[in-house]
Amino acid sequence: MYNVRTLRKAGPMSDRYPETLHRSTVARSRLFRIEAVGLRFGNGVEVEYERLGGSAAGAVLVVPVTARGEVLLIREYAAGTECYELGLPKGRVEPGEDPLRAANRELMEEVGYGAEALTVLRSVTLAPAYFSHRTQLILAEGLFEHRLPGDEPEPIEVVPWPLGELERLLGQSDLTEARSITALYLARDHLAGRAA
Amino acid sequence: MYNVRTLRKAGPMSDRYPETLHRSTVARSRLFRIEAVGLRFGNGVEVEYERLGGSAAGAVLVVPVTARGEVLLIREYAAGTECYELGLPKGRVEPGEDPLRAANRELMEEVGYGAEALTVLRSVTLAPAYFSHRTQLILAEGLFEHRLPGDEPEPIEVVPWPLGELERLLGQSDLTEARSITALYLARDHLAGRAA
Repeated sequence: MYNVRTLRKAGPMSDRYPETLHRSTVARSRLFRIEAVGLRFGNGVEVEYERLGGSAAGAVLVVPVTARGEVLLIREYAAGTECYELGLPKGRVEPGEDPLRAANRELMEEVGYGAEALTVLRSVTLAPAYFSHRTQLILAEGLFEHRLPGDEPEPIEVVPWPLGELERLLGQSDLTEARSITALYLARDHLAGRAA
Repeated sequence: MYNVRTLRKAGPMSDRYPETLHRSTVARSRLFRIEAVGLRFGNGVEVEYERLGGSAAGAVLVVPVTARGEVLLIREYAAGTECYELGLPKGRVEPGEDPLRAANRELMEEVGYGAEALTVLRSVTLAPAYFSHRTQLILAEGLFEHRLPGDEPEPIEVVPWPLGELERLLGQSDLTEARSITALYLARDHLAGRAA
């Protein structure tokens, strides 16, 4: 843990949640808001943190699996890492939008398919120490062709891969996103559990 | 993909990397730097992105596994999600520091153990679309008691868990971090592969 500046130390630990001493926005851009928060822990220690606010409605990441057991991955340019990345379709949940509906919309925009069956596998965080962001990982089955226009700058490459060959997929160096890897493992376990 | 504002559309796709038109810091705090980048894709489409710069040296996340096959998890307060979170020890790599050395240091600070054997399992990203951050997932074995002082505001709870009972561990609702879940799967597969 490095997102810490200790201001004062005292007393024994408690299992209470820390008390918020102050909270303010210290920087803001078109997409991001950085907040400073002062906390007093149960043992009296006071700490100053910075945290990134995420979209209140969160995000979805979709594992589309065909009737033949292939997962439909995508490869697109990622401005954060400045690389083309192999991963799963994803996006923000719009305010008021149902997460399953958001998953189906992103699937239609990015892969060109809709899903008859959507299952929430798990909700995950990215960096809980400093980022509020939560993503719902959603399995999509019963796929049918249906394309919605997206806002991508160039066509997205769709990469089908047999989910049974996850180990070989993990050998691809452009598959880097922990959320995508977690979702692939969970989808494989979920489908294996249903088959058993 | 939502981190996009399309400025101009034209022409067919190319497989070239996009050209950087401009780049500037638009917001900055004690810990974070937000950058605006203008890109022109191979097909002529120009897009304005925002991205978060991470630590240049990156981060490490450690899977400490005892001789009895137990993984040593930690539970600590996370200022981003504002919850106590179950996960794995982690932290920033200091400038000039070897990542394996950083992993051992974080392990000593957060869990009170050092490791005789450290193995890089994989490098992962958090949100490649807008975050440059990279984390090396590192398996730590040959554990011995060795505590270094850390900067945590209260003592960290250490939670041993049999790695063979990963499914039951995934049932814990306070285990949310995709990096930690990915690292647990990879460590289990790595150790199973060695045993086979």
